[in-house]
Amino acid sequence: MDTLFRLEATIAQRLTASPEESYVAKLHAKGLNKIAQKFGEEATEAVIAALAGDEAELVGEAADVLFHLIVLLAEKGVRLEQVLAELDRREGLSGLAEKASRSE
Amino acid sequence: MDTLFRLEATIAQRLTASPEESYVAKLHAKGLNKIAQKFGEEATEAVIAALAGDEAELVGEAADVLFHLIVLLAEKGVRLEQVLAELDRREGLSGLAEKASRSE
Amino acid sequence: MDTLFRLEATIAQRLTASPEESYVAKLHAKGLNKIAQKFGEEATEAVIAALAGDEAELVGEAADVLFHLIVLLAEKGVRLEQVLAELDRREGLSGLAEKASRSE
Amino acid sequence: MDTLFRLEATIAQRLTASPEESYVAKLHAKGLNKIAQKFGEEATEAVIAALAGDEAELVGEAADVLFHLIVLLAEKGVRLEQVLAELDRREGLSGLAEKASRSE
Repeated sequence: MDTLFRLEATIAQRLTASPEESYVAKLHAKGLNKIAQKFGEEATEAVIAALAGDEAELVGEAADVLFHLIVLLAEKGVRLEQVLAELDRREGLSGLAEKASRSE
Repeated sequence: MDTLFRLEATIAQRLTASPEESYVAKLHAKGLNKIAQKFGEEATEAVIAALAGDEAELVGEAADVLFHLIVLLAEKGVRLEQVLAELDRREGLSGLAEKASRSE
Repeated sequence: MDTLFRLEATIAQRLTASPEESYVAKLHAKGLNKIAQKFGEEATEAVIAALAGDEAELVGEAADVLFHLIVLLAEKGVRLEQVLAELDRREGLSGLAEKASRSE
Repeated sequence: MDTLFRLEATIAQRLTASPEESYVAKLHAKGLNKIAQKFGEEATEAVIAALAGDEAELVGEAADVLFHLIVLLAEKGVRLEQVLAELDRREGLSGLAEKASRSE
């Protein structure tokens, strides 16, 4: 389950690699707007896979969403740990309280 | 780092709870289309937070994305482990090879 | 076919109305980020309606997309005419040339 | 202002053209899921252009949104006129009534 932390470390290393050698570095070179756009595209593809694709497609698109979310966070200097801490915090709140604490 | 697996277990339990008591059950009662839509909305909010928000907003929106992605997967009977295994598989492929293996 | 221009004029009037009296004014009061988010949500709903809804739903969601696109343009001071002029310009270019001129 | 109707007619003609000769025919050959995905991508790009781009970028992305919305409608056999009629119908309803009639 350390997959996402390992992925985050790899992405952090690649951010500053040569754009010719790394997909992540290429995204970084294109800038934040392009990274956000790519993340948004993957989310749309996950929506479509959930509605109209098979299981393998949904698995693949969900992986793309996680990958590009971590790239987006890395580009902004946010660590995955902060996001998981936020989820833990919410989980500590129970049932309807938890619901009310989320902006809907 | 078991946060996401714990969250997945909680979501799986709540899916079949009473919609009056649980946000997840309410989403489930609305059906797959609404869950996919909600995930898509959260992704758009994460894009906007990355471009125009502060760090706390991005953390919160990224948490919303993860939460609703897991709900979407649960609704379709896909386990988070399958998605992480796919990320591990890709990570095993290096540099440009990894890039080429992803549909872009 | 003056529907969209009429709608644009109505939206321009309502932008500065009281948020209590007008949905457009309420969006304007919430600011650009919220308007962009709302447009993005409507686009996601149109995608879902196209894949999983009936004709009436798609018509309704496409109307929502157009409505919120015009609100977004108005908020940024861009006129619909400029967008149509861009489409005319592209249409003047034929077949593959037209394709090449669009960023893909 | 007949731009959109002219565009719709052109798109209808191209849908059944050879994919080698026409961007629209190429989209059609890829199927509804890909068309919906492309529309979703263009919407995300319009969101980003509104938040972080200049006027020319927003004009270009809004044109892309309209273009791909019409392709999506055409693929589903929905005419632009139906969408405009829906907007006219809503416009006939005033202020808060109009708001209430829209699913929010």
